[in-house]
Amino acid sequence: MVSAHHDASTPPTRVAVLGAGAWGTVVARLLTHHVGLRVRLWARRPEAAEAMARLRENAPYVPGLRLPESLHVTSDLAEAVRGAEAVFVAVPSRGLREVMARLKALGGSSALVSCAKGLELGTFKRFSEVMAEYLPEAPLAALSGPNLALEIARGLPASATVASLEGALALRVQGWLNQPTFRVYTSGDLIGVEMGGALKNVVALAAGMSDGLGLGDNAKASLITRGLAEIVRLGVHMGGEEKTFYGLSGLGDLVATCSSRGSRNHLAGERLARGETLQDLEASRLTAEGIPTVRAVVVYAQEVGLELPIARAVYDVIYEGKAPQRVLGELMARGAKPEH
Amino acid sequence: MVSAHHDASTPPTRVAVLGAGAWGTVVARLLTHHVGLRVRLWARRPEAAEAMARLRENAPYVPGLRLPESLHVTSDLAEAVRGAEAVFVAVPSRGLREVMARLKALGGSSALVSCAKGLELGTFKRFSEVMAEYLPEAPLAALSGPNLALEIARGLPASATVASLEGALALRVQGWLNQPTFRVYTSGDLIGVEMGGALKNVVALAAGMSDGLGLGDNAKASLITRGLAEIVRLGVHMGGEEKTFYGLSGLGDLVATCSSRGSRNHLAGERLARGETLQDLEASRLTAEGIPTVRAVVVYAQEVGLELPIARAVYDVIYEGKAPQRVLGELMARGAKPEH
Repeated sequence: MVSAHHDASTPPTRVAVLGAGAWGTVVARLLTHHVGLRVRLWARRPEAAEAMARLRENAPYVPGLRLPESLHVTSDLAEAVRGAEAVFVAVPSRGLREVMARLKALGGSSALVSCAKGLELGTFKRFSEVMAEYLPEAPLAALSGPNLALEIARGLPASATVASLEGALALRVQGWLNQPTFRVYTSGDLIGVEMGGALKNVVALAAGMSDGLGLGDNAKASLITRGLAEIVRLGVHMGGEEKTFYGLSGLGDLVATCSSRGSRNHLAGERLARGETLQDLEASRLTAEGIPTVRAVVVYAQEVGLELPIARAVYDVIYEGKAPQRVLGELMARGAKPEH
Repeated sequence: MVSAHHDASTPPTRVAVLGAGAWGTVVARLLTHHVGLRVRLWARRPEAAEAMARLRENAPYVPGLRLPESLHVTSDLAEAVRGAEAVFVAVPSRGLREVMARLKALGGSSALVSCAKGLELGTFKRFSEVMAEYLPEAPLAALSGPNLALEIARGLPASATVASLEGALALRVQGWLNQPTFRVYTSGDLIGVEMGGALKNVVALAAGMSDGLGLGDNAKASLITRGLAEIVRLGVHMGGEEKTFYGLSGLGDLVATCSSRGSRNHLAGERLARGETLQDLEASRLTAEGIPTVRAVVVYAQEVGLELPIARAVYDVIYEGKAPQRVLGELMARGAKPEH
């Protein structure tokens, strides 16, 4: 157990962060504030790692955030995870299996903390489930919440939830990350925390479309409210606890993502509303986790017979080429009836 | 029972809207879309009624919204409510008792639909409870939801909940108001719908302070999430159903109010964050229902022993002169612990 008040006689605890996008970089920076930790950040591309190590900044993703000398940046995965007590995984879904296969080959058995938000297309697996396929012995946790990376990089206050079936691991991660401007709460509901983080991206796409069409704050608030009800319906079906979805990792993350012009899912929705297609978004390298997630969700919901009108509407725009104006209009005009 | 498909042979149903602020005017305009209704709008001040009747616009509150000739505007209360099957009450809390006393003196027994959001200071009564003091025989309903009046005036889509203990009344109001861009849902939880509408104003004051201090979308999303948890705690204590607070009249209204630069409560919070005092707000005639509501809430919470840190923080800024920066900082830095 690492204490927040580190004793200089204790050997430092090593942790690794995999993925040097905005969020991985910010998580690594947050961890460096804990004096008892030695933090290594792994970037996939050697030139990216080299630039960060030299310039002490991840200029393409988090311009202006100073990376301390104590943060070791490397593109050598074996070096990054060697001796690490925990590995924070902040790679996007499309890169997850490759990284996990490499971790397995390295024989790692440290704790794994999922920091990404999404669901795997095809398998409908949460990211911690994918991780467990490769390293079934590793203790698992997930970090989630209203955490727009660039705001945290600026030192603005935020809060998050760390969930694990193993209470001791959740407490350890909390102890490492907790600081005056980043408050970390613990939860035992790993499924609920991961599902909330994945599903909010779908609602954020709808909210982005609504904003792109100029429908206003009333319409967006209705979408958020009814979107949260869909998240609860599917998330509880998957085994999450209802109350988790009303907390920071559910509602909190949903509201932050739908409010922010800085969210990629919101931006993707806005561009779809302006008439761009999935191919246009892909051509401009806009990666929004909600795009594969909504496909996974709609396929799964059909199989098990869940009604998720907002997810369906987002799917219809992205994969069926329907006009955003039309599907949002249909959503807002659904039959008047008792609310619950 | 008035049908949505009005038969010209049926005599028209008369309804009245009391209060010609932005929301009362917009509710009256929404009602005029129903061909089976004759709508009268009451304005307290004769010169305001006269200007609206002549210009066919409520220029000070809803510039640009055309009021049809069929909408009768008057400052004569007796004329407004004569023969009305339902009276929509959209006056602010400070004017409610006076209007109700006058209605009682007129001997009215029509249904009453509360359209305002707040709690009475001193009695901690919901507005429909105050109404029932004067006209205990009148069937009661409340209309609430994410309904920024100026957006609805522009024809943007919105949705709302009408709640009544009498299902037939809720259905009748729904039938009158429901239209393609304004979808109305019914609820039997009058207490929950009114409490959500009242308490969201307190959280909107906190969200406005957070925005005024530039704390960002993560902090505001955390405040909304934890604010909703406070609303649920107090609202369920008062007899509301938990699920109501996660619906349009709870979460939906909360999100719309906290998002909007057009909300008076949000604006009041922003100005408090910039160092203005309650006296400054009063001097500039900024009426924000959250200001008396938070006082009622904090007094009541102390009496019954409920912990409501966000309401307390807002109260401390408004009534104890504490610095917003300090109380929000303390809120965000509260002890890290399990989330639920």
